[in-house]
Amino acid sequence: MIDTNALQKYSLFGGVLPDQIERIKPLFGYARYDAGDRPVREGDPNDKIYFIVIGKVEVSKQGIAIAELEEGETFGEMELIDIMPSIATITALEPLEVVTISNRALYEISKLDCKTFAMLVMNLARDLSRRLRRMDELACRL
Amino acid sequence: MIDTNALQKYSLFGGVLPDQIERIKPLFGYARYDAGDRPVREGDPNDKIYFIVIGKVEVSKQGIAIAELEEGETFGEMELIDIMPSIATITALEPLEVVTISNRALYEISKLDCKTFAMLVMNLARDLSRRLRRMDELACRL
Repeated sequence: MIDTNALQKYSLFGGVLPDQIERIKPLFGYARYDAGDRPVREGDPNDKIYFIVIGKVEVSKQGIAIAELEEGETFGEMELIDIMPSIATITALEPLEVVTISNRALYEISKLDCKTFAMLVMNLARDLSRRLRRMDELACRL
Repeated sequence: MIDTNALQKYSLFGGVLPDQIERIKPLFGYARYDAGDRPVREGDPNDKIYFIVIGKVEVSKQGIAIAELEEGETFGEMELIDIMPSIATITALEPLEVVTISNRALYEISKLDCKTFAMLVMNLARDLSRRLRRMDELACRL
């Protein structure tokens, strides 16, 4: 169901070897949504990162569309590590298939394989840092 | 020179035990600056996180002061993991003492003690996530 090779293209799995992914894969989740479904709602609790395997979603805040994400992209990175309310609503624009990793699964990974866990979290931190730099540039232009 | 108990109050060392800190401490750096010195300049390469042990600094961007940081706070979190140019200039407002961890040292920690490394990077990711949420709120108010 969950294709290891397909997961390797996501930045979160950068540097993680296929057999490392195989080992932790049983901890991943998988879900399907119809167009119009909202896997994540702004302000609601969330504890998962979502990898878009098939489909496209709209990211909105306070009812205003701010971005679209598609196959190969992720959402929920922040909630995965801080388990705070979602900062945006995610709406499926077409039939959607996602692989998920919950905060609980991440904790299980840390016990199962420290190296893989450390790599995932390092990749996550790099992603967040990239987003901070972008936000920072944006804020300076305003 | 570097006080283990003092380091425990920084969010980066949250959950890291004193003996874990002792073990990796030889990899840390230490530096002193005079008032007016600039340990970090916007746009220059940096690969270190700085822990303010004594003193106070001004954070500025494009010549405009945007924040002050003091004992117990850090700067350079983003450069530690992505080794990109500094996003701000840091000026010592009074005599300054800092403990530093470089990207190279972080790599050595990952080889020496995977659990401590994973904990540091997780704490770092949480810090970045907190900052993203703050920036996000700020951007929405503009």
